[in-house]
Amino acid sequence: MDFSFYMPTRIVCGRDCVVKNAPLFRAFGKRALIVTGKSSAKNGSLADAEAALAANGQAYTVFSDVPNNPTVESVRAGAAAARSFGADFIIAVGGGSPMDAAKAIAMLARQDAEDIFSHPIGKDVLPMVHIPTTAGTGSEVTPYAILTNDERETKQSISAPSLFPQIAFLDGKYMQDLPQDTTVNTAIDAISHAVEGMLSTAAGELSDALAREALRSLFGEYENLRQGRYTPESRQNLLYGAAAAGMVIANTGTSPVHTLGYSLTYYHGVPHGRANGLLLPAFLARCLQKDRVRTERIYAALGMGAEEFSRKLAVLLGERESYPDSELRAWANKAAQSRKKCAVAFSEEELYGVLKESVGR
Amino acid sequence: MDFSFYMPTRIVCGRDCVVKNAPLFRAFGKRALIVTGKSSAKNGSLADAEAALAANGQAYTVFSDVPNNPTVESVRAGAAAARSFGADFIIAVGGGSPMDAAKAIAMLARQDAEDIFSHPIGKDVLPMVHIPTTAGTGSEVTPYAILTNDERETKQSISAPSLFPQIAFLDGKYMQDLPQDTTVNTAIDAISHAVEGMLSTAAGELSDALAREALRSLFGEYENLRQGRYTPESRQNLLYGAAAAGMVIANTGTSPVHTLGYSLTYYHGVPHGRANGLLLPAFLARCLQKDRVRTERIYAALGMGAEEFSRKLAVLLGERESYPDSELRAWANKAAQSRKKCAVAFSEEELYGVLKESVGR
Repeated sequence: MDFSFYMPTRIVCGRDCVVKNAPLFRAFGKRALIVTGKSSAKNGSLADAEAALAANGQAYTVFSDVPNNPTVESVRAGAAAARSFGADFIIAVGGGSPMDAAKAIAMLARQDAEDIFSHPIGKDVLPMVHIPTTAGTGSEVTPYAILTNDERETKQSISAPSLFPQIAFLDGKYMQDLPQDTTVNTAIDAISHAVEGMLSTAAGELSDALAREALRSLFGEYENLRQGRYTPESRQNLLYGAAAAGMVIANTGTSPVHTLGYSLTYYHGVPHGRANGLLLPAFLARCLQKDRVRTERIYAALGMGAEEFSRKLAVLLGERESYPDSELRAWANKAAQSRKKCAVAFSEEELYGVLKESVGR
Repeated sequence: MDFSFYMPTRIVCGRDCVVKNAPLFRAFGKRALIVTGKSSAKNGSLADAEAALAANGQAYTVFSDVPNNPTVESVRAGAAAARSFGADFIIAVGGGSPMDAAKAIAMLARQDAEDIFSHPIGKDVLPMVHIPTTAGTGSEVTPYAILTNDERETKQSISAPSLFPQIAFLDGKYMQDLPQDTTVNTAIDAISHAVEGMLSTAAGELSDALAREALRSLFGEYENLRQGRYTPESRQNLLYGAAAAGMVIANTGTSPVHTLGYSLTYYHGVPHGRANGLLLPAFLARCLQKDRVRTERIYAALGMGAEEFSRKLAVLLGERESYPDSELRAWANKAAQSRKKCAVAFSEEELYGVLKESVGR
């Protein structure tokens, strides 16, 4: 039983939790930069954050120029906004993109980094409060920010203990009108996090327990995901499950599934969670031959076998993308070079096999 | 799904984890006060802590004047030792008493508190690293320190977010020669924490998941506890289970079982865990009548019903203490006045009933 586990983010969960717990924002200073995307103004999340700040008499400004799959350019612009406003802290409101961007902004507001991907991230980072409006990334409880690295033609993460948000507010009501495709894709992302976390060399009893809890909560909503019908409780269960899965990968990292998936996203714009979902069943099935004990533990946590898992994800994914061999070969090559803490080793050829089976022509 | 959850302590778990992770101590400064009891010198824990500090070139001194059920006087002496040594941080090595004392010492080394029990604990507390050598209290992952309050004739806790240790090292090897009675009593304490946490108004999905995990790990060792035969894995499972249960009460607090139990400990020296174990089954059985849904969830987490739970604990406890009615009445009265966040309300008469059934004459 060798593991290390660290989860310093305070979780505040429940309906209207942002406004009800407005005093918690006071600890972080007088001036906030709110980092958000385009849609948070519509789902009520931005309004709640603003109401909480107003109740405390805290000043704020909104930076909403965060594109999907945020670029280095965009987070530099956000950091400039934080500096010029004199922000004491950052509030991230939105899905994975604004939440990840907020972390890079919180860092860049205090540290000069010529190359953000190689910069050694120090402790001096603006404190952050994260308010997710999708249930997938788990960014609200991780020390990771995934940014687009155009030089290396992929998405790449930066990571440091100082990038854990101070607080994550989990209120499913912001997801009430979330489109079905986004709901499904992000839920699959969370499922993938829990499964990939259990495949990690850094997995331990505690992260496995959280992975089981995440999968229990997420697959408890499977029928609703399939039918696209969500009660407030469904939304809360999905959001909670995604956060629990986030706590897993905060400690374990992900697997080559994510690395392969980044290529689908980078080159063809496949949504991140969907990309993982397309690849995960074939990857996991191969793990069964390589590390039976570990993989059976994962299927037990899923509450189903390889075939059922594959079928259930296929139902949610619908018609599959397919790509020519030349692309699959290139992606497998790229993924074979990335270092993931996966306990099950895959050769480049085997990664190609996963791609071929999942999205081959 | 309304809850809040906070667990900022980094968990490092596994054989030889203290020495293997010696560099982690460096972050806290150059001079350490090691707070310990009488037995840590024998089980190897103190030596490991000293070896880690020596490897880092950190200076230290040992304060070992911590009695069982630490007094205010003893923690004031420890704080004086920390100040005179110029300690930058505290290392707690031992069972609940040294670990709790270390928290009060870390606080008193930086804050003047005329009455330690009413003092508002600020953020300025020496950083702490906890190395438990028993598997029960969970103090290594809680913000609580339980001290003896002679004025009120009971044990009483102090609590603040700043009292969470920075790191908890969990190495079961220190418990290899732990006597059977201490092993059983502390395991029962941990079981009680998990159960009582699930009874709290502050319980939520996340703390419940950890309580289930704690009970899974602890009751997985039931046969070994009964027979007093422990492998290194058993010891690690008990220590991990106790820490998981500690994470629960860090967020939920305990129940009137603890308050009642403090009287058995204060007036008759009944070991703390044993006191809880004597009272818990009768208390929980009464909860079933008052809040069926919640209590059935707890029995499900235990993997057994009321009768089996009662019987299993009885086997571990052996011959029961018994006390006259006059004492039971007084203890029920005292417990009725304490405020616990228990979701199931008990009248003084009902608390008396629990005592009568559990330890009556």
